[in-house]
Amino acid sequence: MHDLMRRLYPICRSITGDGLRETLRILRDIIPMEIRDVPTGTSVFDWTIPKEWNIKDAYVKNTSGEKVIDFKKSSLHILNYSTPVHEKMSLSRLQEHLFAIPEHPDWIPYRTSYFKERWGFCLSQNHLAAMKDGEYEVFIDSTLTDGSLSYGEFYVHGESQDEVLFSTHVCHPSMCNDNLSGVVLCAFLARYLSEVKPYYSYRFLFIPGTIGSITWLSKNESTIGRIKHGLVVACVGDAGKPTYKKSRRGTAIIDRAVIQMFRHSVKEFDVKEFSPYGYDERQYCSPAFDLPVGSLTRTPHGCFPQYHTSADNLEFVLPENLGESFEYYTKVVAILENNRTYISTNQKCEPQLGRRGLYSLLGGRKDAEITEMALLWVLNLSDGNNSLLDIAERSAMPFDKIMEATLLLEHHGLLQEKR
Amino acid sequence: MHDLMRRLYPICRSITGDGLRETLRILRDIIPMEIRDVPTGTSVFDWTIPKEWNIKDAYVKNTSGEKVIDFKKSSLHILNYSTPVHEKMSLSRLQEHLFAIPEHPDWIPYRTSYFKERWGFCLSQNHLAAMKDGEYEVFIDSTLTDGSLSYGEFYVHGESQDEVLFSTHVCHPSMCNDNLSGVVLCAFLARYLSEVKPYYSYRFLFIPGTIGSITWLSKNESTIGRIKHGLVVACVGDAGKPTYKKSRRGTAIIDRAVIQMFRHSVKEFDVKEFSPYGYDERQYCSPAFDLPVGSLTRTPHGCFPQYHTSADNLEFVLPENLGESFEYYTKVVAILENNRTYISTNQKCEPQLGRRGLYSLLGGRKDAEITEMALLWVLNLSDGNNSLLDIAERSAMPFDKIMEATLLLEHHGLLQEKR
Amino acid sequence: MHDLMRRLYPICRSITGDGLRETLRILRDIIPMEIRDVPTGTSVFDWTIPKEWNIKDAYVKNTSGEKVIDFKKSSLHILNYSTPVHEKMSLSRLQEHLFAIPEHPDWIPYRTSYFKERWGFCLSQNHLAAMKDGEYEVFIDSTLTDGSLSYGEFYVHGESQDEVLFSTHVCHPSMCNDNLSGVVLCAFLARYLSEVKPYYSYRFLFIPGTIGSITWLSKNESTIGRIKHGLVVACVGDAGKPTYKKSRRGTAIIDRAVIQMFRHSVKEFDVKEFSPYGYDERQYCSPAFDLPVGSLTRTPHGCFPQYHTSADNLEFVLPENLGESFEYYTKVVAILENNRTYISTNQKCEPQLGRRGLYSLLGGRKDAEITEMALLWVLNLSDGNNSLLDIAERSAMPFDKIMEATLLLEHHGLLQEKR
Repeated sequence: MHDLMRRLYPICRSITGDGLRETLRILRDIIPMEIRDVPTGTSVFDWTIPKEWNIKDAYVKNTSGEKVIDFKKSSLHILNYSTPVHEKMSLSRLQEHLFAIPEHPDWIPYRTSYFKERWGFCLSQNHLAAMKDGEYEVFIDSTLTDGSLSYGEFYVHGESQDEVLFSTHVCHPSMCNDNLSGVVLCAFLARYLSEVKPYYSYRFLFIPGTIGSITWLSKNESTIGRIKHGLVVACVGDAGKPTYKKSRRGTAIIDRAVIQMFRHSVKEFDVKEFSPYGYDERQYCSPAFDLPVGSLTRTPHGCFPQYHTSADNLEFVLPENLGESFEYYTKVVAILENNRTYISTNQKCEPQLGRRGLYSLLGGRKDAEITEMALLWVLNLSDGNNSLLDIAERSAMPFDKIMEATLLLEHHGLLQEKR
Repeated sequence: MHDLMRRLYPICRSITGDGLRETLRILRDIIPMEIRDVPTGTSVFDWTIPKEWNIKDAYVKNTSGEKVIDFKKSSLHILNYSTPVHEKMSLSRLQEHLFAIPEHPDWIPYRTSYFKERWGFCLSQNHLAAMKDGEYEVFIDSTLTDGSLSYGEFYVHGESQDEVLFSTHVCHPSMCNDNLSGVVLCAFLARYLSEVKPYYSYRFLFIPGTIGSITWLSKNESTIGRIKHGLVVACVGDAGKPTYKKSRRGTAIIDRAVIQMFRHSVKEFDVKEFSPYGYDERQYCSPAFDLPVGSLTRTPHGCFPQYHTSADNLEFVLPENLGESFEYYTKVVAILENNRTYISTNQKCEPQLGRRGLYSLLGGRKDAEITEMALLWVLNLSDGNNSLLDIAERSAMPFDKIMEATLLLEHHGLLQEKR
Repeated sequence: MHDLMRRLYPICRSITGDGLRETLRILRDIIPMEIRDVPTGTSVFDWTIPKEWNIKDAYVKNTSGEKVIDFKKSSLHILNYSTPVHEKMSLSRLQEHLFAIPEHPDWIPYRTSYFKERWGFCLSQNHLAAMKDGEYEVFIDSTLTDGSLSYGEFYVHGESQDEVLFSTHVCHPSMCNDNLSGVVLCAFLARYLSEVKPYYSYRFLFIPGTIGSITWLSKNESTIGRIKHGLVVACVGDAGKPTYKKSRRGTAIIDRAVIQMFRHSVKEFDVKEFSPYGYDERQYCSPAFDLPVGSLTRTPHGCFPQYHTSADNLEFVLPENLGESFEYYTKVVAILENNRTYISTNQKCEPQLGRRGLYSLLGGRKDAEITEMALLWVLNLSDGNNSLLDIAERSAMPFDKIMEATLLLEHHGLLQEKR
């Protein structure tokens, strides 16, 4: 995952344009995703697909002809979606177009202006402070023209048409945690799921933030009902503690599945209630859809100082953190996949487990209590009203222990899946 | 409010009689309330309107003819509802009729005997201790005759026939916090509401405690259903922390509105569950009515040492505390008045706020998150199932921020009130 | 109770056999219970009544002919349900059949092998360590033959056919807390209830653990629905704090009644959620029955070191602890018996309590608040929707105070029982 991120890092992405499309094409090396294009001007609910933005070069030259700001050195130097310009101007006029972060003087901020036409450069505070009075040549070789918005979509056929949605935003330029970490995790999770035969079908969306999810929802209204669970994947590469933001519903199975995973797999974690600010869960959880979609991250957006700056780089995201996050996602998938409801074939009193070799035959041994608890919980609660997740929650045991007990009992004919 | 209280302070009030009526007449200087009279002997549910009590003078004279206890010096000296008496007796016989508070030797207690005929005097412990053996002349020039129970009622016509009830007891003699503070707050709140055109109609009751609310309820059974919210107003003048006692329902809108106001307007506050002891909420919350009526006070009755003594005087109640309490009440009224339910006109994804100038146009600025949260919460929850109070509670934002956002969105055609 | 326990202590009980039957016969000195026999081989749900086990003698002799382990000295020395054996063998072979507890070197463990045929001896670790190499004569004069499983049943006819179940296991040999304490408490509670005329009918079961409750349930399926409340009685003789394990339902009346009793009668107590491990509540709470049966103990099974060892003896169980536990049970019975629902005859406002001598007639006295609270709570909540237990819970007052107030109000015609 980190290698793939390294490959994607230099590209200047935006919500439209060639950078985004190049990214999607590279991801096709991992999974054969569809790349879909929606033309500029298309209405998507209350929004309109904007003009496509592309950029070849941009710089600011001083009177000596030296490039004092150079887009080729960092895609963050350009205010994303800047209009073309080629002008000479004084520093004081130029400064209205320059953005820096005084509190982190070495870092270049990431700024955008998607929906208002303007131009600008981003640079570090130290860099800005070093710029002397004088005339500067400003050059931005960008285009803002009719084109299309592109996004990637990958579908894993499962046994069921019921879907699990993983959505990740792919519109940020050279920034790693937000959100190349999410992009590469999704790509590898998609490949992993396409190699097994899952129960659910899985849909992966690699979309520009906000406008991308709005576009996808507007194009797929008729089948949105198939989405039974979903996660927005972002900021999964830093070393911060795993954090789950609940869906608008708050008690959806995805909410309970992630919390169940946290309780038994993670030492320290945070669970936050839904709020309408954040990533694309804002759209998935808008009132008309109210999809059971949460967001599983490490440190949430805006809560790490490197957020939306050049310091969110390849060093900030460590391979081991990506690996841990990947494991959290696969564990949540395992809960969703296996969360069936079973019915005990012996609801009147316990079945005789000892006769079947499932119970300590020498009474009175204290250690037996622990190992047999999962079997007893599953039998006691498998009255047709409790899923395995319900049983794991009520017993406070890990889902996989409950799952193991279930398979053992089913093997002995003591459980039947409820259909 | 404090000036009015000063004017009302000397009057010897009781649950019936001229003192009560004089008080109501003085209140008519503030609001043109109706004064209603219910004759002695009238049945009101399980109770009967008692005889009317009036008193002209009362004293105890020693053998030298000096008045050692003199009703003219404090209306508290007389056991309220004392029968007439004119007798000579020894100190030891007299002592059966004398009431003091040993633990506060300077304070005169307030005692009543409404429903059992007897006579008595109240005095400070020091005063009592100074009384020497000897014969005393006891004189109480009171009458207990057929007459009427009087109470004041003031109605503010709002847009709706649905009512908010404010009820305050006006039967206590010279005591300020319990309850001249409630009386003057109600008078000024009533005047304030009569000067605006509110949505709700507001009913203010100035009644003798217990028998007054029972009387009013028995006379108004057919229209009680119009009362949608209510508060019993008492003990609002001391410096203690604001305290809310919930209605019997416990989760009524009035309960939630007061708590919402507390959370965002008050540093320290107390919320107590309903109990069937207290003021007139006992009657409003009796099982057949179960009205959504709580009680918003400062220090609750019985919890300040001055309670029901001469120390609950004009110094104990400060103008600034009355002012603060008035503000709490107007803020609760503001929540009740504005607690509508709206429906977003864009339930499929967020509407494009930026296009309407409602959203920071330059992406990536951290401060934008905070100022736009109220807009996003209102849009996200305005699916027709959430009132503004619901939204304020779920977002943990102040009601007025939610309200402002709502008006702004409505102005831009993004919300419609649900009818 | 302790005297009866002393009499029962030496008997070698098991899940079947003469020791169990002798125990039941002795209990008939207290209550005329039925003793029921179910033949070996009978199917009871998924189980089969096992062969009956009886034992006359058992020992291990050394080469000098000395009995180094002697069943006659303690019924715990024999692995319960041991098959007969008479053989000579080396210490090393014998050791496979010897059980001790290294961490408590003086205590003999209690072990069973009901459902797998084997033989063995239990002894203290010190005892085991003292056994020298050499040949031993092993003799177990036991029989494992077709016979029957016996259990005791005692039914107290109440006004109603609705039943309260008390179930206690009577299969353990010489051990006092687990479970002679439960056996003697049940016997005395049964006698006590048979001497009054209760509202509920009470059923007491003295059964071998697990197989006994399964047997009883399988024989009584048609009338199980009469059981409205129940408790499994065990470990009620140690000095540990009272502990309640909730029924599977978790909010059954029995759960609330025990907790209510705890709150107002016990300084320190524990309440545990249901789990499917434990005593016979496992069977009563199996999914098809899901009876409202919890378990009221002192220290729970497995949580005191003496559990299932020779240290659970007549010194470990003190008469005063048995007495306290008995009181807890009678208080719970009192709550169940009296938990009716009443309707106030004055639902519109409070009735005038003072007129009936039920209310302090001299207003303003602080002490009146406390003594009258129970009356006010009962009146306020007796709208037909609240039982006395509901009222006790909401008022946080002891059930017996609420009960007293109820009887007083009923006597004055202010309450009627809801039918």
